[in-house]
Amino acid sequence: MSSNSFGKLFTVTTFGESHGPAIGCVIDGCPPGLAIEEGDFRADLDRRATGKSRHTSQRREADEVEILSGVYEGKTTGTPIALLIRNTDQRSKDYGEITQTFRPGHADYTYWQKYGIRDPRGGGRSSARETTMRVAAAVIAKKWLAERHGVTVRGYLAQLGDIAPEGFDWDAVEQNPFFWPHAEQVPALEKAMDALRKSGDSVGARVNVVAENVPPGWGEPIYGKLDGDLAAALMSINAVKGVEIGDGFGAITQRGSQHRDEMHLDGFASNHAGGILGGISTGQPVVASMALKPTSSILIPGHSVNLAGEAVDVVTKGRHDPCVGIRATPIAEAMMALVLIDHALRHRAQCGDVGVMQPRLP
Amino acid sequence: MSSNSFGKLFTVTTFGESHGPAIGCVIDGCPPGLAIEEGDFRADLDRRATGKSRHTSQRREADEVEILSGVYEGKTTGTPIALLIRNTDQRSKDYGEITQTFRPGHADYTYWQKYGIRDPRGGGRSSARETTMRVAAAVIAKKWLAERHGVTVRGYLAQLGDIAPEGFDWDAVEQNPFFWPHAEQVPALEKAMDALRKSGDSVGARVNVVAENVPPGWGEPIYGKLDGDLAAALMSINAVKGVEIGDGFGAITQRGSQHRDEMHLDGFASNHAGGILGGISTGQPVVASMALKPTSSILIPGHSVNLAGEAVDVVTKGRHDPCVGIRATPIAEAMMALVLIDHALRHRAQCGDVGVMQPRLP
Amino acid sequence: MSSNSFGKLFTVTTFGESHGPAIGCVIDGCPPGLAIEEGDFRADLDRRATGKSRHTSQRREADEVEILSGVYEGKTTGTPIALLIRNTDQRSKDYGEITQTFRPGHADYTYWQKYGIRDPRGGGRSSARETTMRVAAAVIAKKWLAERHGVTVRGYLAQLGDIAPEGFDWDAVEQNPFFWPHAEQVPALEKAMDALRKSGDSVGARVNVVAENVPPGWGEPIYGKLDGDLAAALMSINAVKGVEIGDGFGAITQRGSQHRDEMHLDGFASNHAGGILGGISTGQPVVASMALKPTSSILIPGHSVNLAGEAVDVVTKGRHDPCVGIRATPIAEAMMALVLIDHALRHRAQCGDVGVMQPRLP
Amino acid sequence: MSSNSFGKLFTVTTFGESHGPAIGCVIDGCPPGLAIEEGDFRADLDRRATGKSRHTSQRREADEVEILSGVYEGKTTGTPIALLIRNTDQRSKDYGEITQTFRPGHADYTYWQKYGIRDPRGGGRSSARETTMRVAAAVIAKKWLAERHGVTVRGYLAQLGDIAPEGFDWDAVEQNPFFWPHAEQVPALEKAMDALRKSGDSVGARVNVVAENVPPGWGEPIYGKLDGDLAAALMSINAVKGVEIGDGFGAITQRGSQHRDEMHLDGFASNHAGGILGGISTGQPVVASMALKPTSSILIPGHSVNLAGEAVDVVTKGRHDPCVGIRATPIAEAMMALVLIDHALRHRAQCGDVGVMQPRLP
Repeated sequence: MSSNSFGKLFTVTTFGESHGPAIGCVIDGCPPGLAIEEGDFRADLDRRATGKSRHTSQRREADEVEILSGVYEGKTTGTPIALLIRNTDQRSKDYGEITQTFRPGHADYTYWQKYGIRDPRGGGRSSARETTMRVAAAVIAKKWLAERHGVTVRGYLAQLGDIAPEGFDWDAVEQNPFFWPHAEQVPALEKAMDALRKSGDSVGARVNVVAENVPPGWGEPIYGKLDGDLAAALMSINAVKGVEIGDGFGAITQRGSQHRDEMHLDGFASNHAGGILGGISTGQPVVASMALKPTSSILIPGHSVNLAGEAVDVVTKGRHDPCVGIRATPIAEAMMALVLIDHALRHRAQCGDVGVMQPRLP
Repeated sequence: MSSNSFGKLFTVTTFGESHGPAIGCVIDGCPPGLAIEEGDFRADLDRRATGKSRHTSQRREADEVEILSGVYEGKTTGTPIALLIRNTDQRSKDYGEITQTFRPGHADYTYWQKYGIRDPRGGGRSSARETTMRVAAAVIAKKWLAERHGVTVRGYLAQLGDIAPEGFDWDAVEQNPFFWPHAEQVPALEKAMDALRKSGDSVGARVNVVAENVPPGWGEPIYGKLDGDLAAALMSINAVKGVEIGDGFGAITQRGSQHRDEMHLDGFASNHAGGILGGISTGQPVVASMALKPTSSILIPGHSVNLAGEAVDVVTKGRHDPCVGIRATPIAEAMMALVLIDHALRHRAQCGDVGVMQPRLP
Repeated sequence: MSSNSFGKLFTVTTFGESHGPAIGCVIDGCPPGLAIEEGDFRADLDRRATGKSRHTSQRREADEVEILSGVYEGKTTGTPIALLIRNTDQRSKDYGEITQTFRPGHADYTYWQKYGIRDPRGGGRSSARETTMRVAAAVIAKKWLAERHGVTVRGYLAQLGDIAPEGFDWDAVEQNPFFWPHAEQVPALEKAMDALRKSGDSVGARVNVVAENVPPGWGEPIYGKLDGDLAAALMSINAVKGVEIGDGFGAITQRGSQHRDEMHLDGFASNHAGGILGGISTGQPVVASMALKPTSSILIPGHSVNLAGEAVDVVTKGRHDPCVGIRATPIAEAMMALVLIDHALRHRAQCGDVGVMQPRLP
Repeated sequence: MSSNSFGKLFTVTTFGESHGPAIGCVIDGCPPGLAIEEGDFRADLDRRATGKSRHTSQRREADEVEILSGVYEGKTTGTPIALLIRNTDQRSKDYGEITQTFRPGHADYTYWQKYGIRDPRGGGRSSARETTMRVAAAVIAKKWLAERHGVTVRGYLAQLGDIAPEGFDWDAVEQNPFFWPHAEQVPALEKAMDALRKSGDSVGARVNVVAENVPPGWGEPIYGKLDGDLAAALMSINAVKGVEIGDGFGAITQRGSQHRDEMHLDGFASNHAGGILGGISTGQPVVASMALKPTSSILIPGHSVNLAGEAVDVVTKGRHDPCVGIRATPIAEAMMALVLIDHALRHRAQCGDVGVMQPRLP
């Protein structure tokens, strides 16, 4: 079962364990003639990279992407694009001690229940290391979306524990290690993270992601809705426990007269819907938000059981990432981009290259 | 593109427009030998049925399910099961007036942008009428899940606008038209709904759904996670704008030491995870929640545009359902059941009929 | 598992047993705006219909197609198109006697081994009755292929037992009940069939199918090749035991210097390849051929076993179709058309509406 | 579109160009706990390897398989298994001259028409080099099939041009470079091949493949039939132009009374069906045959056109493989094995681990 593949037409299959020899992906269905070179992956992989600041896990990867296939003389050929990254910083010893126990709140236990195998290599397949390849694949998706449709996909950290932004500026987002949209708060975030690290604990976060210039008509009712696919895409990111489109849970207490986005000849009056109605894009920005739990890999001992069926206390030694939500921002952008390119191709398959050209609201 | 199909191994394909001649579905991959008869569909279809009380839309359907194939002498044969319901109450005239305009907040506009077709028949394919077949298909899924694994799936209304339950009792849920878990509040809900109807407006809601006795090991990393598939399934329900698993957005402000579910020899100490870790079931109850927006079909005029590109005011005449969230409860149960049976079959495909029999926490 | 669905983007799901209440299909992914009405199905269903002459099984169907969804005011809407045909001529009594036995060479035995169910209703799902819906679905596919690309798909009977055509004329094919391309031989075929019927035996056949005006570039390497999909499509037809593309098995004894189709500025010098190279269409006619076995439903007693595990002799009473290959001709056309429309949509998904416009050989 | 993936539940995705940096595959859905090590791939890769004798193309590969993921301590973990082979013998210069022309009978032309890209690296993706990964993936499939079900899959060369076997002995097959089942003919084959090489031409071939101990019940009607999937699998092999199951095209001239396989209490009296009825295995050996065309890469000049639209004569320099059918034998075995393991998993998904245990014919 291709459960490690994402997308129906722009299909990304990832493989690899956090501390195995390598991670990689195969991208099948990419349109031919798109210019791609190995340097194109650098920027987004650096944004995602752990160890980019003292506020994220200290693992340091070279993360050099090798293009194994599907690109000839700098252009995609239409055949499968395989990308490979060797794991240079395995440090499996960090994990040696806990190979016989299950960390509470971690996938150790469920993988073992499902497969009967305990692969302790840095969480094996369940590690966030896998998301590196989502970001790499999305570099290609973003490039096609931008060149062909002018679509841009951007994310930011919208909450860190109980700290919320007190202002918003897209330019600020890329200028601090938190992807935080309000520069003035960065010192406070640094302070909060230092305290958190000292406590050995972790905290949750909220990440928002927005796609602009998405044309109307993308998304396929009923079980291939754009919002349904986005929900699956974001929920598939490690530690995500909730997903919202537009006003999300805020819509519960709204009245229909408030929530509906009225239409005027010069455009929509609001975007409570988050750019999607009936599972199809409206032409407004597509807006999604996700909640990330605090990681279970913390320094505070926790009650658990081991393979021998004994009660034990567990401490996760080694790297400690007090807020995994911070580096989830580029991953959320990646998943949004992968959903959008897939629907762009699905739309033109059924409705043609230009879709069904209707007069559109500005 | 099979965008009207749900599930990889227990595959449900639905068809039909709200006011077309019929709606139906085809279920492919159902295990053979399961006892099914037309009477089995009655109870859940009645629970979902509009018009079950004065608090939901007044459309009254016979909703008689005809089994067209896949069942012989009362048992599933392993071949496709087709179910058909004739639309007996079409009343298309209700919609005649708005065939040239777009209702703000409704899928009219996006369907027209995507397909270039304006099918006004009761919202056509985008109507909640389609969910009738999800409930019908889930009757079969629930029966197999219960008989083979003892799995039960139950839902309830967890918020109506700004009214939240002040107590919880599963027995109460089926004894009021709101699927509300606290009987004492029912008169207040009646009052609130009457006021809402009088105002011609609508309100949002929250529905929770819980599956019990789900064995550990169901769910497939990375892009076929149980929570990822649940998120897509619930988000595909009309009007849903947000989905949570376990503590959901509440996890943002939690610490890792609070959120992680510690394990003892007599079981888990808590269920913040909602029964899923790393995309795989833990053996605890699977808990999900969803937010429904207030319907855009209200009696209060709204600004919009028409096919001629003119500014217009729109009022949705005809049936008026002030809180679509109420009857979304059985639909949420249905989607949870369809996800679970699909993963039950996917698990035994890869890991065998009994899965990988590990010692399990009680 | 959607094993009753055909096609990745133009997806046809069929359901129904030969002698159940109805057969039908759901077509998902059809481009919007295509003109379709119920009368469009008549011609091809009549061509396929059993009982069109005394040389095929005497079952007489009304085969009235009802369009249940997906078409509004005579045009496809882009939503699923459901087609339904009620079974009016069930005559299950014919089959009553053999419900406890297995007919040698028939799927009775394997369905029972797989599903543990013995559904005797006219062969249940394994009956050629199912192919009626393939022909119906292909009516829509053929119409789109013709209107958008000028593609035509035609088939003929290329061998009946040991009788081969002694001439070829497309015009003759539709003017005799055998789809035979040489009118002068029709009396001889009539005579052979009468003798065969008298003997109570059956004979095999070969059917050829040709698609013209297929543009170059359709087909997806490696596992979605046009010829690979055609092979699966034709092999899925009841009684088919062999499939060839172009010269097929004749290529075994050829030299490379004979087989290769040389290219000149005014086009290809030959078409040994059958219009496909590397799984992708060349722009020449796509040519396929299939072998059909003689049906096992004959009047000559055969040794078999029964459900009680006893040795028995079996005679298939009731309808007797001495050469099922005759009416397989429209079914082969249907499968070719379904493969081509699927690849047309797949090609434009990846490569755009016009494909990659290269200078093409005339 | 995952057109480079094969299999629904045991899914193999291949990537790589003949003369790119590497080829590889990702296997998703493999059951956990299967013992696999890198040495397991050696035997079958050597059997397939080009250059194993002077009668096949002289390219010599190291073909060292590296397992990148999905195996821990010598056992499959249930996560994706990635296999990688570096291309050590690229010799692209061989192909330099023809980068501007199209070889008649080769996929050069169709790939360029589809994708607009001319990737001359040894035929790029269309090269038989890709089949190396099918053989590697099938090593895992064969091991599981043998260990769990005792299934064996074996192939042999059944015709070389107009030379057919004059005797049959499975033991002989692995003792000559032709996979020929009759040792006495080997000198004659050597002579024929030498003459063919001297002539600079090529010839076609027939390969047969047989699977034994396949239990009854594998295969899914209607569009997932075992024979339908086998037909697609074999037709997807480079140069294959025809596929037969059981008697194949021989069934055309048979009578029903000859073709049907009568059943006795001690088993089937014959196997004209090739072990499949109604798309489902009968429990008899599954028998398939395929026709391979003579390769178009020959030393005899041929008329063609070039990218500039000029008439040219083409000679394929470099390696010359006068009968590609010889080394197609292990590839045919591989595709049969991949189809069987996929259906084994699909069967237990729907019908359970032991299937539906019926009394079976010996």
